[in-house]
Amino acid sequence: MTPIPVAILGGSGYTALELLHILLRHPSVRIEAITSRQEGTPWIGEVHPSLLGRCSVRMEPLNVDSLVARGVRCAFGCLPHGASMASLPMLLNRGIRVIDLSADYRLRDPNVYAQWYGESHEDLAYLAQAVYGLPELYGDEIPNAQLIANPGCYPQTGILGLAPLVAARAIEFTGIIIDSKSGVSGAGRTPKLTTHYPECNESISAYNIGKHRHTPEIEQALTDLAGEPVEVIFTPHLTPMDRGILSTIYATPKRSMTAEQLAGLYREFFAKMPFIRLRSTPPATKDVMHSNFVDIYVQLVRGKVVIVVAEDNLTRGASGVAVQNFNRMFGFDERTALL
Amino acid sequence: MTPIPVAILGGSGYTALELLHILLRHPSVRIEAITSRQEGTPWIGEVHPSLLGRCSVRMEPLNVDSLVARGVRCAFGCLPHGASMASLPMLLNRGIRVIDLSADYRLRDPNVYAQWYGESHEDLAYLAQAVYGLPELYGDEIPNAQLIANPGCYPQTGILGLAPLVAARAIEFTGIIIDSKSGVSGAGRTPKLTTHYPECNESISAYNIGKHRHTPEIEQALTDLAGEPVEVIFTPHLTPMDRGILSTIYATPKRSMTAEQLAGLYREFFAKMPFIRLRSTPPATKDVMHSNFVDIYVQLVRGKVVIVVAEDNLTRGASGVAVQNFNRMFGFDERTALL
Amino acid sequence: MTPIPVAILGGSGYTALELLHILLRHPSVRIEAITSRQEGTPWIGEVHPSLLGRCSVRMEPLNVDSLVARGVRCAFGCLPHGASMASLPMLLNRGIRVIDLSADYRLRDPNVYAQWYGESHEDLAYLAQAVYGLPELYGDEIPNAQLIANPGCYPQTGILGLAPLVAARAIEFTGIIIDSKSGVSGAGRTPKLTTHYPECNESISAYNIGKHRHTPEIEQALTDLAGEPVEVIFTPHLTPMDRGILSTIYATPKRSMTAEQLAGLYREFFAKMPFIRLRSTPPATKDVMHSNFVDIYVQLVRGKVVIVVAEDNLTRGASGVAVQNFNRMFGFDERTALL
Amino acid sequence: MTPIPVAILGGSGYTALELLHILLRHPSVRIEAITSRQEGTPWIGEVHPSLLGRCSVRMEPLNVDSLVARGVRCAFGCLPHGASMASLPMLLNRGIRVIDLSADYRLRDPNVYAQWYGESHEDLAYLAQAVYGLPELYGDEIPNAQLIANPGCYPQTGILGLAPLVAARAIEFTGIIIDSKSGVSGAGRTPKLTTHYPECNESISAYNIGKHRHTPEIEQALTDLAGEPVEVIFTPHLTPMDRGILSTIYATPKRSMTAEQLAGLYREFFAKMPFIRLRSTPPATKDVMHSNFVDIYVQLVRGKVVIVVAEDNLTRGASGVAVQNFNRMFGFDERTALL
Repeated sequence: MTPIPVAILGGSGYTALELLHILLRHPSVRIEAITSRQEGTPWIGEVHPSLLGRCSVRMEPLNVDSLVARGVRCAFGCLPHGASMASLPMLLNRGIRVIDLSADYRLRDPNVYAQWYGESHEDLAYLAQAVYGLPELYGDEIPNAQLIANPGCYPQTGILGLAPLVAARAIEFTGIIIDSKSGVSGAGRTPKLTTHYPECNESISAYNIGKHRHTPEIEQALTDLAGEPVEVIFTPHLTPMDRGILSTIYATPKRSMTAEQLAGLYREFFAKMPFIRLRSTPPATKDVMHSNFVDIYVQLVRGKVVIVVAEDNLTRGASGVAVQNFNRMFGFDERTALL
Repeated sequence: MTPIPVAILGGSGYTALELLHILLRHPSVRIEAITSRQEGTPWIGEVHPSLLGRCSVRMEPLNVDSLVARGVRCAFGCLPHGASMASLPMLLNRGIRVIDLSADYRLRDPNVYAQWYGESHEDLAYLAQAVYGLPELYGDEIPNAQLIANPGCYPQTGILGLAPLVAARAIEFTGIIIDSKSGVSGAGRTPKLTTHYPECNESISAYNIGKHRHTPEIEQALTDLAGEPVEVIFTPHLTPMDRGILSTIYATPKRSMTAEQLAGLYREFFAKMPFIRLRSTPPATKDVMHSNFVDIYVQLVRGKVVIVVAEDNLTRGASGVAVQNFNRMFGFDERTALL
Repeated sequence: MTPIPVAILGGSGYTALELLHILLRHPSVRIEAITSRQEGTPWIGEVHPSLLGRCSVRMEPLNVDSLVARGVRCAFGCLPHGASMASLPMLLNRGIRVIDLSADYRLRDPNVYAQWYGESHEDLAYLAQAVYGLPELYGDEIPNAQLIANPGCYPQTGILGLAPLVAARAIEFTGIIIDSKSGVSGAGRTPKLTTHYPECNESISAYNIGKHRHTPEIEQALTDLAGEPVEVIFTPHLTPMDRGILSTIYATPKRSMTAEQLAGLYREFFAKMPFIRLRSTPPATKDVMHSNFVDIYVQLVRGKVVIVVAEDNLTRGASGVAVQNFNRMFGFDERTALL
Repeated sequence: MTPIPVAILGGSGYTALELLHILLRHPSVRIEAITSRQEGTPWIGEVHPSLLGRCSVRMEPLNVDSLVARGVRCAFGCLPHGASMASLPMLLNRGIRVIDLSADYRLRDPNVYAQWYGESHEDLAYLAQAVYGLPELYGDEIPNAQLIANPGCYPQTGILGLAPLVAARAIEFTGIIIDSKSGVSGAGRTPKLTTHYPECNESISAYNIGKHRHTPEIEQALTDLAGEPVEVIFTPHLTPMDRGILSTIYATPKRSMTAEQLAGLYREFFAKMPFIRLRSTPPATKDVMHSNFVDIYVQLVRGKVVIVVAEDNLTRGASGVAVQNFNRMFGFDERTALL
């Protein structure tokens, strides 16, 4: 089969790098273009030395005509929010399918977007068509989607960790606590004081308490599942490691449950989902490093449900799930290039 | 003034090392003895090279007669639990005051000890006299104590973070969540697979969910403050850093509060306590590294109180507070050697 | 094509884990058996949770008859030295080809083995037949080898970094300095104090100065290339990171060279070797993390040649090169499963 | 005794922070002023939260008249090179003694400065008077110095590690190799890509090979000792840890030596120097963390001398030795505040 020509928009960050490492193993993909605003069209290996000898592509300015002319059928958007909704419509208008790793098309309600991101949404037309690309919940809509809003790293842990309980209406829908610990790569590749090595190494801290932008994304998906508003208290923490998210979630059962009933809810909900691993002991983020798996552990403690979810923020949290979505969109086995 | 001769019991672990670093700066202390079961009475600098050139003491087997003969007035117990209650009565019987860093004398109810530590308590007599050495709550009892049960590392963060709210009866006394992240030194110095570098580096994980032994210790102190039972859900996490504990605590107010009222409760409660720093932004564990400070931040989020507490698990969490207790016991300024 | 059934001997360590991650991506391999002395034949995923959902094999005691009966054609030895030469002859006698990741068959001279490993060699017969599995130097002998002595992690950096200069007889053959920095996984998975997290984290140290066992292995290969004795001073350092080796090498040119002549020697020597990347700036170990590449940089400094070599000690340094050898032995493209 | 009022010039970086931690323990020092170009005269604790509750000083713009009026007798310069020689003469002209932690006054020859720092020296007058503040070598000149050029972090390891051999003329004075590994704080507090956490964590790399600015500083001191030119090849490496430098040094004896003769040279040279610890096993940087000690180990290997030197780059490498110099300048015990 002829490989599918794809483009990466915004090649200099960590999600683009991760995406390239995955796509280079995909038997049915050809990296046709990697765009960047960097001057001088550098080879991708000059920006990401780990790709030397593996990917001989020069970065180029975004030129939609050129992408169309070269047959690009799918573009992965690795642009910052704001820049995504400014650029992607041009590609979509020309028939290129898009998987957007930014936050621009995740929140269906543009007012919620404006409230949390501080600027109004500029592309209501495609926003209305976007499919939230969390395969375990919205898998049926993905094959026919023109535009996928690839889910956020933290939100996937919160949504997947709570989905069985919310779907079964087994917990209270307020007061849910999501205490998340993320590696530093989640903050992106632009140097700043908070991610300067001697500042964040050997230290853990909470940030954006009660105001992190992933909060409404988690609530939107859980509200979809519940059929009524679900409210979470989300506390992210910056953890001294390159990659990985561990979310420890606390919820209050509506009715009493046994441990076996609780485990049963999870087994049933995630049956046949190849990237969810239900664990009998609490997972470590190292167990899922560089993998597309989401590891979930549940336990009853003094009348609360405690759920621990581990994910690699760059693989499953961004670029891995993007390829999982790509596989569903183009008819490949969901696991291609991901095991 | 003649320095006070002290002994360290069990010199080979991290709390003993930290204690020595602090006590070597104490103008009124002389390290008279460091005991150990290690063969060959090695110099302390052979076991802890950072002490070379600073502390010329050989480790010796514990011999109470010798300690008494040499005038030792205070012993710091750095022995494992179980070993503490087997050894310390011999010293106490001879008039040596003891600050025990193990867990043996922290839980007043021997049944609770037996339940959580899996063995029955063997020294009910001294248990009944022990003072729980958290200076901010039990400070008045410390000067006259013969035996101090030095508080645990995790418990201090939970107790101090919640104390103003519990004392004011401002929160529900059930469903309190303490989500704690600790550096690896908290696991001690004995090598095991979970603390083997390539296992725990670049990884975070929860452990002992719902069954960590520090749970009843937290509850005992909070119950003292409340005058009625307080129940917590405590989840410790192993975090890839040498030192530091960050506890993120979630509680439900009994009545509505403004942010200013909340802050006022904390200011009032901790007024004149030199080692508590109320922060206007969330602390990082690095802010308290190698220090005896406890940094506390509070915020209201969607009807919950979120409290973040940072502490160095070896300094404030163990050896620093031990010296703070020592200073109170022997009439020194509480801050001596700790700033 | 029918996949080739292979066995992993000694499945509980890091090289076995790395090997499994690579082999699971190999289109022509089936993991038939993983042996271990662990009790209870655990699933491999119980020992290495990252393999859960990817590899459903139970660990089993080594039983050669069973391996033969099940058609195993190649065994990867991940046993400690000593144990390797005690076990592998049984497989070799039955026609199973072996890639031994231990040091047992690397040193051709059993006296040198005895001198550096402190015990006499017990299998002189197969020692005489073993091929040193460094594909860039001994590639022609690998396809027909029955027994491959897979090269050590440090030695590959030293040998490959110096090979062009030694082959060209362009440097003095004494006084060569190899200053190597390795991640902690190189020390294996058995917990000990030196690799206990709080001991080696945030610290770097030299060890086994002048007496590391990889010294004669480096010298043997360089002596092969030179046709006369080559002597190195090798200083390994334990570096606070999971993986990676960086070797900084210093050699004295026999005759003056320009930078261009120096670079030319390296380009020519490594032409057409797919896993050697000659770099124009000094590499970081992160550039080769989880890859089979060896990155090499050379520079003239005040009359010395300074060479910097980066390698992932578990991938290229052990399990990756083992698969590279496997590919050559069984007629696959050398790069299969390694890009 | 009245404490000596001191000023810190340039308070926002890591050396200023370290200096404050040390000086706050100095019984005879009062922090009178901390200058900064930061807007708004923030409290020092806002810039360095670890100082909250310990140091209540607002940062202020540099105003020499004000410093003189307030009786400042000594200023510690924590400014970047270039800025130092632009500012310090103003203070020196007014009689304030200066310990300059920048590189501006370290190289006696202004041509060498121009060659390595790329700009001409602007203060030849004070350059001629500056004393190089390495107490072990230039200790006699320090008490009367008006201006101390505080030594660089890397140079101290190279100079002290080689001093006994150079002074005894026991090694060749060319071809000396200094392979140094430094923690990331050595790169300062300004965020950049190379010190962005996900770039340098879990990775080690060499940089500025053959052209690091500390090279001539090392050579100047060793040449002083030798009485003839000494030439070194210096390779610094960025190591994934906050603090610490380990330098592994290779030199060629001029004449054969026994291990005991070698050790004797070091014992004799460093006799009575309180901050040099001669080690019988190779030191780890953790052994000297947060301390002013320099740990040195020597060994003969195949005709070379291998020297390993460990230092904390912020304490002994910068702010600790600055206080050691201060103590000598003002007549205090050299160790005050440093043990």
